Amino acid sequence: MPVGTQATVKGVTQEELEEINFPIILGNTYHLYLRPGTALVEKAGGLHKFMSWSGAMLTDSGGFQVFSLSGLRDIEEDGVRFKSYLDGSSHFFSPEGVIRIQRSLGADIIMAFDECPPFPCTEESARLAMERTHRWARLCKEEWLRGDTQQQALFAIVQGSFYRELREESARQIADLDLPGVAIGGVSVGEPTGESIRAMEWALPFLPVDRPRYLMGVGTPIDLLEAVERGIDMFDCVLPTRLGRNGSAYTSRGRLNLRSRQFTEDFGPIDPGCECHVCRRYSAAYIRHLCRSDEMLAGRLATYHNLHFYHRLMQNIRCAIEEDRFAAFKRSFLDDYKTSV
Amino acid sequence: MPVGTQATVKGVTQEELEEINFPIILGNTYHLYLRPGTALVEKAGGLHKFMSWSGAMLTDSGGFQVFSLSGLRDIEEDGVRFKSYLDGSSHFFSPEGVIRIQRSLGADIIMAFDECPPFPCTEESARLAMERTHRWARLCKEEWLRGDTQQQALFAIVQGSFYRELREESARQIADLDLPGVAIGGVSVGEPTGESIRAMEWALPFLPVDRPRYLMGVGTPIDLLEAVERGIDMFDCVLPTRLGRNGSAYTSRGRLNLRSRQFTEDFGPIDPGCECHVCRRYSAAYIRHLCRSDEMLAGRLATYHNLHFYHRLMQNIRCAIEEDRFAAFKRSFLDDYKTSV
Repeated sequence: MPVGTQATVKGVTQEELEEINFPIILGNTYHLYLRPGTALVEKAGGLHKFMSWSGAMLTDSGGFQVFSLSGLRDIEEDGVRFKSYLDGSSHFFSPEGVIRIQRSLGADIIMAFDECPPFPCTEESARLAMERTHRWARLCKEEWLRGDTQQQALFAIVQGSFYRELREESARQIADLDLPGVAIGGVSVGEPTGESIRAMEWALPFLPVDRPRYLMGVGTPIDLLEAVERGIDMFDCVLPTRLGRNGSAYTSRGRLNLRSRQFTEDFGPIDPGCECHVCRRYSAAYIRHLCRSDEMLAGRLATYHNLHFYHRLMQNIRCAIEEDRFAAFKRSFLDDYKTSV
Repeated sequence: MPVGTQATVKGVTQEELEEINFPIILGNTYHLYLRPGTALVEKAGGLHKFMSWSGAMLTDSGGFQVFSLSGLRDIEEDGVRFKSYLDGSSHFFSPEGVIRIQRSLGADIIMAFDECPPFPCTEESARLAMERTHRWARLCKEEWLRGDTQQQALFAIVQGSFYRELREESARQIADLDLPGVAIGGVSVGEPTGESIRAMEWALPFLPVDRPRYLMGVGTPIDLLEAVERGIDMFDCVLPTRLGRNGSAYTSRGRLNLRSRQFTEDFGPIDPGCECHVCRRYSAAYIRHLCRSDEMLAGRLATYHNLHFYHRLMQNIRCAIEEDRFAAFKRSFLDDYKTSV
């Protein structure tokens, strides 16, 4: 899922997301709740209509943002009090409230409210956060059951920081909720990737195989391959858009810095193996010039290409799995990808 | 002509310019000469190929930028010495050199090197700048004649500041050069619009009616109507793109500030009379949200709409002229346009 924090996947239009063929995108409850506000989105007929997106949509629970973006926050047993990053106004997110907000936003998949503990943290505080996450998940489920469960699928989130015992216990409890899907939260706000892969490995054996399994906030193309190999089905990640805006391109030859001198006179595409609109029309030399000139078009073209690259990677992965040749696909992809240019 | 200063019309792709149906865009010789540099563009096969633009293209002479952007510049009889705004390096533009640079860039229409005097300036200094502009125009013509005049059309520029006698004399001299087209320079760097309209009126009677007449750097939709009425055929202007990036939209109801509170719950298009892709899909409320959230998509959508608005205005003007109903069209357009919303 491309990340559409503020009801837009940064730098691209909804037409372009359709063109690339993304079936689902993510919106951030925390941001949308604060601006434009739940009431306005509801008045527009929901997030799909507000932003004119006819594909599927997932909203997160706001937990991650409340814990990472709010300077001032106060965790209480029945929720979190926090201040808006926009105007300092005071707000309260409860598990039930977060489900109601997501009901108003109207996404197809909604997430249970979870507590993301800091990293690193003691086993004791990780346990407290995990237990609160489980209690909140049960409250979220109750509130979800009061709505139209056919319209919106609820996923709950495995926590437990980097403690194996906690991750296993959390996975068991989240699985027991018997929801339409399950998610694995990162090790923490500001997580190191290796720890997340490990935490995912601990949780996976306890999660149902007949439900979508979503690894939140991951990751690089290599991360995606590693996680899929272990059984993950869904991801969201800001990397293709964020790095695109910063002038980096994901290509079959690895990640490239488009400002690099090596592209000065490279009149071929940034990725010769790519068939996206950008690679079919614009040269690396031209895009390098746009990057160096801080032109908006640089971010647009690189973002579009990166999203296309990620989409194609997932598509190729699905195809390889169906044809029972995932291991060969992974090896061949990585051989090319790790070739430094 | 949309302005594509650095080989990109800010915020839009070449595909979008084609979609709107612009037959010609402008590039800035001064910027392109400094970055990516004439040699690189030539190596790419010219500006059209470098940026992948198959429509027509006009490059300006760099005169306006040399006089307005270069902090340090030194006007000599055979050209201007100036420092790069990028790195402070020293450069020299001569009339012949500017033609050779534009030959390398490869635009379809190129401009003679002119001197833009400050505003206001004495009649004496305006006369000196004008006479230098005429001498330079003759040198440009000589250099142009040494190239393939069928490949590139040269236009020269009327100067003379806000002095009627000078404008008339300049128009006569520029007309005498018998070039494929003529242009009227603005009153000055940082010009007041009213003065420009007057300066244009003084020059027009002396310019050939059988050549395209190009008013440089103008203007608002109202300016375009006023200038066309007096006999102008061509314009370039940054307004639709610059104001689009700043969250202003040109509409049939006038210019609108898209951040305005009035659009909070306006789920209709920003311009109900418009058939562009933006107006067909996105609401004013959504675009307002994007503007307030400083999202890239805000600038993209408003820029696209504004370019479409300008293109349609010129198309409607041409159609009205052909059907001999320009005056009625102008009246009706202004009646709607001046309706404050």
